Amino acid sequence: MSEASQFTPTERFLRSCRGEPVDRPPVWLMRQAGRYLPEYRRVREGVTFLEMCRDVERAVEVSLQPIDLVGSEAVILFQDIFTPIPGMGVELDFSPGPVLADPIRTAAQVDALGVPDPNESVPFVFEIIRTLRENLAEREVPLLGFAGAPFTLAAYMVEGRGSKDFGVLKHMMHREPAVLEALLDKLTACSIAYLNAQIEAGAQAVQLFDTWAGLITADEYRRWILPRHQEIAQAVARDRAPLILYINNGAHLLDASVEAGVDVLSLDWRVDLAEAASRHGDRVSLQGNLDPCALAAAPEKIAEMVGAMASAAKPARGYIANLGHGCLPQTPVEGVKAFTQAVRAL
Amino acid sequence: MSEASQFTPTERFLRSCRGEPVDRPPVWLMRQAGRYLPEYRRVREGVTFLEMCRDVERAVEVSLQPIDLVGSEAVILFQDIFTPIPGMGVELDFSPGPVLADPIRTAAQVDALGVPDPNESVPFVFEIIRTLRENLAEREVPLLGFAGAPFTLAAYMVEGRGSKDFGVLKHMMHREPAVLEALLDKLTACSIAYLNAQIEAGAQAVQLFDTWAGLITADEYRRWILPRHQEIAQAVARDRAPLILYINNGAHLLDASVEAGVDVLSLDWRVDLAEAASRHGDRVSLQGNLDPCALAAAPEKIAEMVGAMASAAKPARGYIANLGHGCLPQTPVEGVKAFTQAVRAL
Repeated sequence: MSEASQFTPTERFLRSCRGEPVDRPPVWLMRQAGRYLPEYRRVREGVTFLEMCRDVERAVEVSLQPIDLVGSEAVILFQDIFTPIPGMGVELDFSPGPVLADPIRTAAQVDALGVPDPNESVPFVFEIIRTLRENLAEREVPLLGFAGAPFTLAAYMVEGRGSKDFGVLKHMMHREPAVLEALLDKLTACSIAYLNAQIEAGAQAVQLFDTWAGLITADEYRRWILPRHQEIAQAVARDRAPLILYINNGAHLLDASVEAGVDVLSLDWRVDLAEAASRHGDRVSLQGNLDPCALAAAPEKIAEMVGAMASAAKPARGYIANLGHGCLPQTPVEGVKAFTQAVRAL
Repeated sequence: MSEASQFTPTERFLRSCRGEPVDRPPVWLMRQAGRYLPEYRRVREGVTFLEMCRDVERAVEVSLQPIDLVGSEAVILFQDIFTPIPGMGVELDFSPGPVLADPIRTAAQVDALGVPDPNESVPFVFEIIRTLRENLAEREVPLLGFAGAPFTLAAYMVEGRGSKDFGVLKHMMHREPAVLEALLDKLTACSIAYLNAQIEAGAQAVQLFDTWAGLITADEYRRWILPRHQEIAQAVARDRAPLILYINNGAHLLDASVEAGVDVLSLDWRVDLAEAASRHGDRVSLQGNLDPCALAAAPEKIAEMVGAMASAAKPARGYIANLGHGCLPQTPVEGVKAFTQAVRAL
């Protein structure tokens, strides 16, 4: 391999986001800092999830673990998508998912929500980012920030907790559209401020997680979600940090989500990567999309699947190897290692 | 309207399944006999779900309720997809979903499963069907039977209960494929026998529910599920009762599932009905696919959505109006009525 084809992990990652030529895809995994790692569980011991998020030292430690423990080539800030929400004036707990004492269901409740300066409401996030950048400078590994997307945050806030059908949210969509619009407006403003503050603090790329966008049809996506994705894509400092959009269970939203105008679309495992790459790969880089449960397979099978994935992604201007959803508590560490090794060997 | 364009509900339904011309689409709703109906809850009172399934009188009563109470134009046998499973030698309970005392995880457990004659193992099902047909003869409303699809039954049987990720099932897919194959083989034989016995007893159409098929990729669907769907489509007496295949969350499986060779594909609400109709409507009739949560909308909005749905389905050789998933306990009865009325007014 010639000297000119060598890239640092940071260069390889950022070039892939922007569709510039690289030697091979970079690799990281959603929820790579998680319970599947014994070393994570040790740091997590004795503190609540919220305490862990606010504890700069522990958050930094678990964010960094996947580099050496499983061979990940990017670090993502350890936090939760709900980190900035209490700053809006919402009382919330984790048990284990987010649970709101008072679900947001009226115009008055939405009016009462603040749009705080994240540097004041969640200063620990930016301290974690700055500390991580110091730690990563020598290794030249990129640091990703992230935020929950407005619709996904609204889904939990209206429902009060996770749900199978999100019937209360959809009731609001059909019966109180103005309330939901107002809530999404505030959350969009919050997400933009939060992502830009992360970039300001040192995040080199940012990912927007729309976990529940797949609950609705493509027409509803265009009505309720796409305008917010577009607003975020325009307002976030993408010249300084590319924007990745992850939609869970979004095979039916693929064509519409391309119009969001982000740098990278992160696909869940149900999406046909080859089709996405050939249909949209000239406009957007792709990330994903192995089923996390496939990491239970034998290492040689995982290497095969990684090879198939990389081939499928070929027509795309840029590609970042990842899962189609986050690592699960039962994900075998050996499977995660086999995954990163297979990508590094491409 | 001329005399020639008049069809009984049974004729309209069966002709739509087979793609023969009709005056307008027929309408029914998945899980139309359910907790959203106060009259259902009254019959259900004081008995367990399993008792209710085996109680011919009560099962007949709730099966018939949706005709007069909400204007449905087809009756579906009141049962659960797990009805025939205890007959295979599996101990199971509902709490509220199916829960197995001993999840099926080894080759020995699969070997021990029987493929019973449904007329011996669940005679009450056929008594319910015969009684329903007697009740429906005068009204000329069609009676549908149904069965769980092998993959969905296997998913619960391996996992032991419902799950978010079905990690144990997928572990088996990747690590013990022969065990899963053998389990699917037995379940396929059971489903075929069960559906044919229902047709023999008087079911005029049958629906196969593959609730969990959407968990896997299109390639995995072709490997694990499609051959079973095809086998069922070939072995079921479709000349006597058309076969409807429902896949939940299957937008990414649409193209592959057409190859199953069934008479009707029942689509979940995420699938673009217009696209499905134009791409595959010459080969297969379509059923669906309004989001059950949309029945929370105002009646005039529901009528609008029904109109849009019927227009989208136009290119298909046949179309049956339905939801994209079952009625939910919180579904408003008024919304269900608005739905059937809007279809009847088409």
